Amino acid sequence: MSVKINENYLLLKSSYIFAEINRRVLNYQNDHPDADVIRMGIGDVTRPLPWAVEREFQKAVQGMGEVDKFHGYGPEQGYEFLINEIIEKDYAPRGIQLDESEVFISDGAKCDTGNIQEIFSLKNTVAVTDPVYPVYVDSNVMAGRTGAMGDDGRYDKLVYLPCTEENGFVPALPQEEVDLIYLCFPNNPTGTTLTTEETREWVDYAQDHNSIILYDAAYEAYIQEDNIPHSIYEIEGAREVAIEFRSFSKNAGFTGTRCAFTVVPEELTGWDSQGKPHDLNPLWNRRQTTKFNGVSYPVQVAAQAVYSPEGQREITESINYYMKNAGIILKSLKDIGLRVYGGVNSPYIWIKTPEDMDSWQFFDRLLEKPHIVGTPGVGFGPSGEGYFRLTAFNTLENTEEAMTRITKLQEEI
Amino acid sequence: MSVKINENYLLLKSSYIFAEINRRVLNYQNDHPDADVIRMGIGDVTRPLPWAVEREFQKAVQGMGEVDKFHGYGPEQGYEFLINEIIEKDYAPRGIQLDESEVFISDGAKCDTGNIQEIFSLKNTVAVTDPVYPVYVDSNVMAGRTGAMGDDGRYDKLVYLPCTEENGFVPALPQEEVDLIYLCFPNNPTGTTLTTEETREWVDYAQDHNSIILYDAAYEAYIQEDNIPHSIYEIEGAREVAIEFRSFSKNAGFTGTRCAFTVVPEELTGWDSQGKPHDLNPLWNRRQTTKFNGVSYPVQVAAQAVYSPEGQREITESINYYMKNAGIILKSLKDIGLRVYGGVNSPYIWIKTPEDMDSWQFFDRLLEKPHIVGTPGVGFGPSGEGYFRLTAFNTLENTEEAMTRITKLQEEI
Repeated sequence: MSVKINENYLLLKSSYIFAEINRRVLNYQNDHPDADVIRMGIGDVTRPLPWAVEREFQKAVQGMGEVDKFHGYGPEQGYEFLINEIIEKDYAPRGIQLDESEVFISDGAKCDTGNIQEIFSLKNTVAVTDPVYPVYVDSNVMAGRTGAMGDDGRYDKLVYLPCTEENGFVPALPQEEVDLIYLCFPNNPTGTTLTTEETREWVDYAQDHNSIILYDAAYEAYIQEDNIPHSIYEIEGAREVAIEFRSFSKNAGFTGTRCAFTVVPEELTGWDSQGKPHDLNPLWNRRQTTKFNGVSYPVQVAAQAVYSPEGQREITESINYYMKNAGIILKSLKDIGLRVYGGVNSPYIWIKTPEDMDSWQFFDRLLEKPHIVGTPGVGFGPSGEGYFRLTAFNTLENTEEAMTRITKLQEEI
Repeated sequence: MSVKINENYLLLKSSYIFAEINRRVLNYQNDHPDADVIRMGIGDVTRPLPWAVEREFQKAVQGMGEVDKFHGYGPEQGYEFLINEIIEKDYAPRGIQLDESEVFISDGAKCDTGNIQEIFSLKNTVAVTDPVYPVYVDSNVMAGRTGAMGDDGRYDKLVYLPCTEENGFVPALPQEEVDLIYLCFPNNPTGTTLTTEETREWVDYAQDHNSIILYDAAYEAYIQEDNIPHSIYEIEGAREVAIEFRSFSKNAGFTGTRCAFTVVPEELTGWDSQGKPHDLNPLWNRRQTTKFNGVSYPVQVAAQAVYSPEGQREITESINYYMKNAGIILKSLKDIGLRVYGGVNSPYIWIKTPEDMDSWQFFDRLLEKPHIVGTPGVGFGPSGEGYFRLTAFNTLENTEEAMTRITKLQEEI
């Protein structure tokens, strides 16, 4: 006998897209040391923490050095002071009532969207939009809910819901019955959104099929237009069918500070093999209390400060800054005749590659001519082939410079 | 069709021991509002962060508010500056060479010891010492490596290695072949240790059986005596068979700050069902990069400061402080005729209950007479029945007061 590995890992594609991007950029820079490369690929923010947040973060750290303000283990689910702020400031104003026991603070939406599948049976059928944030797919591959990847770039047994120009990036309801549905809106990578009515169709589907929607709203702060839900719980009945993931990464610049939260309403139900219903909230609570030890106390204090009036003002400024970049990108690319999507309620701009170039060809073209790094759409799934993602997270100056270059070189792009 | 839950969760015992402790203490305090209860149950530290650590933590937070010092996403595996410090200060002085790629920074040893089983097949046989830190057991129950719990308090299919007075708390090598072996030394909850020779037997066993040892060394900083390994890699051949977990929680007071690390040597091998070997290091790397987004940057800076000369001096002071408490507890309890273990290389004192009381009877007796809260040994596994854990993490004043009370009331205890 000998120790056996989890063979599902062998089904994963070994190379991660951002590693391949880095490899190509490094190679190019080695060969062209004078090229001034502008990175608009990775979805990381560049603006610092809001001053109001940094100040409270500092105070909490200072307290950690004093006997009477020191904090050891906190509740695995997070501190009430932060949970209550979330309930009162993010949800109550939209007419959504949440109980403290329904909000779980964590160190990242990546962790939570990766871990949530643990509380569900391996026998569930999983649906993902295509293109998609790879964590939803990979975490299910690792758990064993899929087969191998076929030549079409799709894992066997996983249900793909294509989002392309043809359907306006609105996924069609699945033909087959599915149990778990990952939805991310505003979407990563396409930057597109669903209206309230379009979201309601998904809630209705989940109601009709006893499915659960895993709703990733990490980019909700970027929504500018009306009639686009900031929370899935704005839709009637969603409390019975949806888990929602939120994060402080993209609104308050917490990508390197690490804080997020997940909402698991009390009404959510799953079934055992005898057909007996079970509440999902205590299952997630058990998962978190067993395998997680809570978010750093000073980080939770910092997250609370996001909701202060100054914090909110600074966050709005940052989002406006990034959205100005998005507007510049959108206009510049449209002006040179590219078909572009997203960028209105999202920091992501999704480009149809010109002349039917594939994603990586367009990547190389943008790197070699205007020296801009973006993300090939195919890295997010087979329906991302022929598309390309740029982000609005660079500085205004770099964004303007990048668009000036693209406009000048438009004949070669 | 409808969404199905992970039914393994239904096998878990619903009540967590610390919740039951809190319930009993609250009830008692409601009935006896004047009782001055001293808590010596939970393994949380009470001394604040070292000054040298807090100072660097502060600086890093300040930088997060400045454009040119801001840090967004970092490497999921942790920053090199912290990894290198660990390699040079924790391992090199003991003659252990580690590569940067072998150390993974995380937000807690609880998370890592809970998550590590994911990279292994469900078909492995798992062995745990008994009593044991419940996370090792529960994470395997949730994954589906066990059956139900029997009347003897043992999960079916899990191999229990009793650690009791009879064997001096040194687990015997298993009779059956096991693939994964969780060892925690200095031990939680018993506070006992293995010598270098005793540890070597386990490494030899793992070598002989192609098993993997999951070695939790979260309490290594408390080791005072010679001939007790601080790292399992002090044992020749351990790089081929052991993963080691470490934490800043118990040495530097990071229980509320959250930072830990896991060492996965390149030599470690697991096998697939075709008998083909696979390196474990890339599997853990894939797990972490897919489901984790790195530890908060300022927290990693704070952890680095643990290794500064001032940081080390302050940490030694704190550990001496706690170990003085441990010494007081040990002596006081021995003086009144109790049989006590641990407390020499560990902040935990493991008490044989007098008069064959069971763990919860002794809990109630200590709460009602000297008003001291400890942890019933049975909460850590069936072989913990008849034992009781006290920790040295309270203040010197409270520890002395608690022992004075116990000494006075010894007739009633």
